[in-house]
Amino acid sequence: MQISELDTPAPVIDLDKVEANIKALQNYADSHNIVLRPHIKTHKLPLLAHKQLATGAKGITCQKISEAMVMAESGIQDILLSYNIVGKQKIKPLTNLACLSDLKVGLDNEVALATVAEAATLADKRIGVVLEFESGNERQGLREVSSCLALAQKVQSHAKLYFAGLMTYPLGQYTDAWLNEAKSAFAKAGMDIPNISAGGTPAMYKAHEHPDITELRAGTYIYHDRATVNAGVATWQNCALHLHVTVVSHPHPDRVIIDAGSKSLSSDLISSGKGYGQLVGYEEAVIYRLNEEHGLVDISACTRKPKIGDRLEVIPNHVCVVSNLHDEVVLQRQGKVEAIVPVLARGKTR
Amino acid sequence: MQISELDTPAPVIDLDKVEANIKALQNYADSHNIVLRPHIKTHKLPLLAHKQLATGAKGITCQKISEAMVMAESGIQDILLSYNIVGKQKIKPLTNLACLSDLKVGLDNEVALATVAEAATLADKRIGVVLEFESGNERQGLREVSSCLALAQKVQSHAKLYFAGLMTYPLGQYTDAWLNEAKSAFAKAGMDIPNISAGGTPAMYKAHEHPDITELRAGTYIYHDRATVNAGVATWQNCALHLHVTVVSHPHPDRVIIDAGSKSLSSDLISSGKGYGQLVGYEEAVIYRLNEEHGLVDISACTRKPKIGDRLEVIPNHVCVVSNLHDEVVLQRQGKVEAIVPVLARGKTR
Repeated sequence: MQISELDTPAPVIDLDKVEANIKALQNYADSHNIVLRPHIKTHKLPLLAHKQLATGAKGITCQKISEAMVMAESGIQDILLSYNIVGKQKIKPLTNLACLSDLKVGLDNEVALATVAEAATLADKRIGVVLEFESGNERQGLREVSSCLALAQKVQSHAKLYFAGLMTYPLGQYTDAWLNEAKSAFAKAGMDIPNISAGGTPAMYKAHEHPDITELRAGTYIYHDRATVNAGVATWQNCALHLHVTVVSHPHPDRVIIDAGSKSLSSDLISSGKGYGQLVGYEEAVIYRLNEEHGLVDISACTRKPKIGDRLEVIPNHVCVVSNLHDEVVLQRQGKVEAIVPVLARGKTR
Repeated sequence: MQISELDTPAPVIDLDKVEANIKALQNYADSHNIVLRPHIKTHKLPLLAHKQLATGAKGITCQKISEAMVMAESGIQDILLSYNIVGKQKIKPLTNLACLSDLKVGLDNEVALATVAEAATLADKRIGVVLEFESGNERQGLREVSSCLALAQKVQSHAKLYFAGLMTYPLGQYTDAWLNEAKSAFAKAGMDIPNISAGGTPAMYKAHEHPDITELRAGTYIYHDRATVNAGVATWQNCALHLHVTVVSHPHPDRVIIDAGSKSLSSDLISSGKGYGQLVGYEEAVIYRLNEEHGLVDISACTRKPKIGDRLEVIPNHVCVVSNLHDEVVLQRQGKVEAIVPVLARGKTR
């Protein structure tokens, strides 16, 4: 089957590009003795997670219990759940996940720690706890080294938990200063820090400039998108997921409508330049507005104008959220469809 | 089961409010002799579409073939597909849909007309064609009455198609002027305009002020959301879908993190005031930033501060896109869970 025979909108993934992207980051990590633990949120596909592991990744990173469970069910053992798991409803699914995998959980507070401890007790199996610190992103994570050390000591005092290191997202301006203070405080308390993990694709090739970082959690690098191209860590050629769309209306000389709106592309602008995605071959076109099923494209600056019925390709602003919107993705090589596969960890919000 | 026992994030729908919202608009439409044809994009649930029909709606509106097919499979006959269907891949699914239903298709161009004509021929069944005109929204639709008339005549010349009227979205500043011109041109050409349909919840209670409008397509009114409250057509009490979330981190005195980000709430701002949703009971709180699984909430102005483990409720900015993000929704009355049902027409982008 040729790509041109697919119904649209269709997310189409170039496997040659995927494999090259996986290798590029693995080579970088290997050459700097950094462990790679890819975040699967970008692809949500066990088959690509297994490709990442086969190329040298030590384990994977997931954000929610339900998406980690999909990966564990596919046979993946070494899982970091990099999210505060809070509340009694989470205990049973977390226990199941712990039984199936070699689980580490990231957290920044005692309520989450109590949830993880209860799951470890029920699973009768040790769970690693990775403490999240805040180093410039102002999202979450411990800000005070003293609070972090106290929490680490609490982890070590629990028979079914062990302290599995520190994590931050992304590499920030305060990462090194924070770690220097932490290393000194932990050493004084007689505690080792077994691993220090940083996340994020935009700064991935700077990980080695932070001497304490021993692990990298990157997700987007497997597909790349307009945001990572704009961040300077990829070229348009590296972008492996294109959304194939059709022009369905041409209501004004300067405007065409594509059959992909926020339900196919998401409303994420993610500071990627003008509009909601880059049209391949129409660099001057701007997808300037999305309704749920309509993408409004300003073609006033285009020398070549698309017309109704034309099939176009969009490189998304933020590819991870696009994976989450589609039940299936098309896998291709050299323009030929290899398979259409369900996005098994799509929609896993819990 | 009580709502407090649900795992989060969980979209929870109050059926009493749903029924009251359905009745309110049906009463309005009945009192003005306007036919109601609800857009099912908001709920994507056949069981609620049937409630709308049982309360007096004449038929339903869908945007894509695949979501219309879910509704047809549930036994709904009278369907308007208000979207330009373009391309050879669409012919077979459109033919199937036409066979199962009493189908009308909205369009604004000849390429879409050719696709619909081919499906009608293959189905060996008449399909109604509704011509879309543009009346202020600058999205799509015919701008020239003369082009619209010519397309209507082309419809009438096809044995398996019939001209089923005009549609626009939303009611715009040029709607009445455009329709006056159209009525005169169609009359001169000896053509009736059997129905004139307008869409949109924000202006729904103004439909009767436009004397030519005979049909109303509204979607959001069944749940309402922050945008329709801000538009003045609903109160917070009318908002039937609340996303139940949990506070998972409190990294700074002024900030808590909820376990719902863009994967649960979407990045739609839809000019609804500050932030990505309204926290019930914390009017001063602002959900000021979303990552995929993190909602960052500024609580600096709150007199009462939420803490880790607390369960909160969010009224979404734009509820339709939230329905599309969740595989299941919870149906409740008076705080008791009645059922958890799959969102059968979720993710139907084609």
